[in-house]
Amino acid sequence: MGKLIVGIDIGGMSIKGGIFDTEGNILHRFVVPTNTQNNGNSIVLDMVNGLNQCLQENNINKKDIIGIGITVPGPVVENKIVLKCINLYWKTKRDLQKEVLDLLDDEYNKNDIIIVIGNDARLAALGEFWKGAGNHYNSAAFITIGTGIGGGIVLNGKVLTSNGAVAGEVGHIHVVDNLDYCCNCGANGCLEQMCAVPGIMRRTFKLLKTSKEDSTLRNYDKEKLTCKDIFDEAKKGDALSLEIVNTTCKYLGIAIANLTAIVDPDVFLIGGGVSKAGDFLINKIDEYRKQYNCISTEQVPILLATLGNDAGMYGAVKLVLDK
Amino acid sequence: MGKLIVGIDIGGMSIKGGIFDTEGNILHRFVVPTNTQNNGNSIVLDMVNGLNQCLQENNINKKDIIGIGITVPGPVVENKIVLKCINLYWKTKRDLQKEVLDLLDDEYNKNDIIIVIGNDARLAALGEFWKGAGNHYNSAAFITIGTGIGGGIVLNGKVLTSNGAVAGEVGHIHVVDNLDYCCNCGANGCLEQMCAVPGIMRRTFKLLKTSKEDSTLRNYDKEKLTCKDIFDEAKKGDALSLEIVNTTCKYLGIAIANLTAIVDPDVFLIGGGVSKAGDFLINKIDEYRKQYNCISTEQVPILLATLGNDAGMYGAVKLVLDK
Repeated sequence: MGKLIVGIDIGGMSIKGGIFDTEGNILHRFVVPTNTQNNGNSIVLDMVNGLNQCLQENNINKKDIIGIGITVPGPVVENKIVLKCINLYWKTKRDLQKEVLDLLDDEYNKNDIIIVIGNDARLAALGEFWKGAGNHYNSAAFITIGTGIGGGIVLNGKVLTSNGAVAGEVGHIHVVDNLDYCCNCGANGCLEQMCAVPGIMRRTFKLLKTSKEDSTLRNYDKEKLTCKDIFDEAKKGDALSLEIVNTTCKYLGIAIANLTAIVDPDVFLIGGGVSKAGDFLINKIDEYRKQYNCISTEQVPILLATLGNDAGMYGAVKLVLDK
Repeated sequence: MGKLIVGIDIGGMSIKGGIFDTEGNILHRFVVPTNTQNNGNSIVLDMVNGLNQCLQENNINKKDIIGIGITVPGPVVENKIVLKCINLYWKTKRDLQKEVLDLLDDEYNKNDIIIVIGNDARLAALGEFWKGAGNHYNSAAFITIGTGIGGGIVLNGKVLTSNGAVAGEVGHIHVVDNLDYCCNCGANGCLEQMCAVPGIMRRTFKLLKTSKEDSTLRNYDKEKLTCKDIFDEAKKGDALSLEIVNTTCKYLGIAIANLTAIVDPDVFLIGGGVSKAGDFLINKIDEYRKQYNCISTEQVPILLATLGNDAGMYGAVKLVLDK
């Protein structure tokens, strides 16, 4: 049997793992719940136990594992040190690489095994670049739009990281002046404030309140109205919904123009729940970014991400291969 | 004698060259005028002749030249192809690497010599990173503020370039909405529109016209008023001048916040004519970027560039060494 790599995505709800061959084919999967009790103290052990059980069930020799890549929902430096993870209740810096190595038993090749850690959004970018919509390109910027906006940048095939752990925080590109509330990051006017789901909903409720215009959105139970509803009504031609979508795409267009002026990737990849609006979203972003982009770069494609929630695992595996 | 590297900076007015050792010490200099007649057809030959003459005058054996790095004021791809250079009247794509190699005589090591071409602002960034204010850092973003705004990004010691030749175009970061005129790049709301000298002057004249406020700027002959005057009067406390400077620094702060969210360099370097305003400028930019930056990154230093017009030559030499 060939050499194997483990990709693990630690999220706030569950820990998802996969056993991959070195070509990036997923052979087996495992999932364990994320236990955030006691400051998330058992998470790393639960993860290693989940991995061990998966290997045992599939009769895989631990010696065949050449590397383990792990994503966490927080800032990471040097591919090993996790600064904090609010959603995991990890409040202080920890050397996750060492912790994982210490928890592996002696049946693993402990002297040679590669253990690398990365931020979840950054590694999702790397995953999409490697095995998703970015796989024909040399560089990519990934924007994932959900309850927040995350992302990452891949340049010459390598995911961009920084000593400050901030590189690739595309959700915190400044896109608008003078908002009357701050972003979670402490700044004001971030893309995430305008275009993540809470921002879209906030703008929608405000517009429904201030506008006297008729709108099919007014037929919805306000408590149950979703972002998907807004995009669906916009597609059907509801003017007020369309205004919300247009504003969303304008700010995404500005962010893309800034990513172009700064790193100029060969492709933009859009993922996350909001990206389910599909080509309707992509075409509108493309329309707006042309107003803000240098003329010469208008043709850089904007594509929908394809790996969904698996992107992080793929990226974790690629990070092992890049070591 | 040790091996030598040539760094050449082709500008719209003159071609500046230097003979460097491999440590980056400049040993000899030469300058020839830039002849833009006949679509700048003689520029490359004039440059090679200037180099040959400098080597002869200093009794340097052409065989000792291991590489030639050249900057041009236009977009470059693959460190060899110049797409165009408006200021040199080069209107079409040319393989400058091949042109230079063809013009070298057989006394050069034509089989081994490294010839690399780069954009002037990008290589100035690399030069400042290597031998200027950035020389204790691992990554840097350089912003040069003059009649335009240029710059470049150095990551892990290497200057960032892209297939689209746009990476590092920090002057075209989007910082403001709804300007009533377009940027030279075709977009709207670029940093260069607000903060390069013409933008600063435009805002100043507009404010002098629309404001009724008293100002020491009104004592100047309008035809002779300079950017330096505005910064000098702001330093002395003139409120209207201060407003112009504050707006300038606000938009530079936004650009720096965006550079942080996207590439998160270890240091920011500010150069160009406007940077002669010194710490007064730097401190104000620092003040404003804190409003737009993720909290964790407020401490990334902002420093004045130190190499002045030599930065490009140094960067050209470093690009040779990086090959």
